[in-house]
Amino acid sequence: MITLTRQEIEALIDRNLAADAIEAAYCAVSSNQVTLPPVGHIPFPGTDADCHIKAGYIHGDPIFVVKIATGFPSNEAQGLPNGNGVSVVLSAKTGAVRAILHDEMRMTDIRTGIGGAIASRLIAKPDSRKIGVVGTGIQAREQVLAHADLLGPELSFQLWGRSPEKAQRAAFDLSKEAQITVEPNLQTLCEASDILITTTGATAPIIMAEWIEAGTHITAVGADAPGKQELETALVAKADGLYADFAPQSIDHGDFSSAIKAGLINPDHIHDLGAVLTKQVARRTDETQITIADLTGLAVQDIAMARIVLDRVDAAGKN
Amino acid sequence: MITLTRQEIEALIDRNLAADAIEAAYCAVSSNQVTLPPVGHIPFPGTDADCHIKAGYIHGDPIFVVKIATGFPSNEAQGLPNGNGVSVVLSAKTGAVRAILHDEMRMTDIRTGIGGAIASRLIAKPDSRKIGVVGTGIQAREQVLAHADLLGPELSFQLWGRSPEKAQRAAFDLSKEAQITVEPNLQTLCEASDILITTTGATAPIIMAEWIEAGTHITAVGADAPGKQELETALVAKADGLYADFAPQSIDHGDFSSAIKAGLINPDHIHDLGAVLTKQVARRTDETQITIADLTGLAVQDIAMARIVLDRVDAAGKN
Repeated sequence: MITLTRQEIEALIDRNLAADAIEAAYCAVSSNQVTLPPVGHIPFPGTDADCHIKAGYIHGDPIFVVKIATGFPSNEAQGLPNGNGVSVVLSAKTGAVRAILHDEMRMTDIRTGIGGAIASRLIAKPDSRKIGVVGTGIQAREQVLAHADLLGPELSFQLWGRSPEKAQRAAFDLSKEAQITVEPNLQTLCEASDILITTTGATAPIIMAEWIEAGTHITAVGADAPGKQELETALVAKADGLYADFAPQSIDHGDFSSAIKAGLINPDHIHDLGAVLTKQVARRTDETQITIADLTGLAVQDIAMARIVLDRVDAAGKN
Repeated sequence: MITLTRQEIEALIDRNLAADAIEAAYCAVSSNQVTLPPVGHIPFPGTDADCHIKAGYIHGDPIFVVKIATGFPSNEAQGLPNGNGVSVVLSAKTGAVRAILHDEMRMTDIRTGIGGAIASRLIAKPDSRKIGVVGTGIQAREQVLAHADLLGPELSFQLWGRSPEKAQRAAFDLSKEAQITVEPNLQTLCEASDILITTTGATAPIIMAEWIEAGTHITAVGADAPGKQELETALVAKADGLYADFAPQSIDHGDFSSAIKAGLINPDHIHDLGAVLTKQVARRTDETQITIADLTGLAVQDIAMARIVLDRVDAAGKN
């Protein structure tokens, strides 16, 4: 059994290799080649803290993973991170514990960024160059890094944040990795973007239908829990193509849920990325379509990340 | 985050301290002071291997626990242990990972022994001295050690096994810890025992109703999964008191299940050990009653074990 720290894990992750593994994992889901028990949930009575336990096995993989993630909002008052966690990697051949990946949520942040870039690469029009980023937190940063790695160096990013200071700070921090500027007007950002990435924790829509022009693709990663919504319901209703990392989850608690509740979209018209990757359904069919990928995160992404980290460890052991 | 090996964990466990913690945990269950999400289960298609994920939080505890246990029967052909596992201990105050207890199932074996001894101590007639042990595996050994630690040094053990050689070997191994002999006849063993402990993996009854005399207490730990049964159904039917570590689980897959299916006992008459400990129901009322405690194992036992290990680590850190 090996134990890796957050820093050690981060040094072993190549976003393009991870993207290949995550795409393969999405395909496995859409081909029913995965075993995913229901998510375990422990709330802590009298607080707003909780723990989620996500486990899964991709059939044929040498490993399987149990990921434990905690959220303790009261940590912030003590200067501690809100989120925390660890992934336990076990051999699918013997059941022995292979590794403790004490990543403190780092792999989740990185894989969420990669999931967004996979969706954009797969669904946006091929010549998309102008990327609009809504939000200034860790996911805004991870989406920029993953899009820059997966979609090529010629992208230009514009970033908008509710706080101009935080937007300037995020753009400055990312300027070594990407060509990026701040756009102070959200509507202007939306109108100028080939790909729009939304990463906020908004609980009421902030992206309006009339701001989104023909041909735009939106990758929405902020609304990942019941009660969150970034996109105006009318925008979801007018989109030509709706995609998800896992449709049942997006239907339940993503940006699509309010449009479904209002009877404006048919849940059967939401397609999984894995179904597109395996060509069970088509990607966008022309350059004028508006497409939305609503991503809520999937345990198989965590398995794929653990797999590529272990592959690197094993490869190093053999050299 | 600290990581402890099987040997380090074993050295930190005092069975009497652990028994106090497990009794408190049983009481917490019977007082609804626990959060236990459903057990996660991953089968491995095309094999008889699987993984169980048991998590839980005893309200007010400083820690909570996620236990991952695997069973890979094909390991035996390679000379590897069938069972394996690890417990992750997290802070209930911050969600941070406090410890990785890489016990490879050792804590489960020990806590199962302690659970049996708690049941015997609570339910058997107070002057019970002659202990019959059925089986020669790890649980036969753990039950002897736990009964010797919890019920006092004046106990005398007799042990029966299907294989005389394995019975001799187990008695020899245990002779340093307990006064123990082999009894080659199972009926004779049953008739001579104040407390009978059954630890086999039998799938058909091996303990007959007519062998069990008035005043005997039986602690049954072998039948812990659907399809297993050690006690003749007529024996369960004739018992004066029926107890379980967790009645819903024993009703579903313990020794009581076939008597319930046959309509011979009323599931409402099975009482949890926690309910006895908290005096919600009575223990045995006279010395002639036949009582049975059917134990299938509970996640709160694992939490209690992790708790006492961490308490020892913390106490050592302060010295």
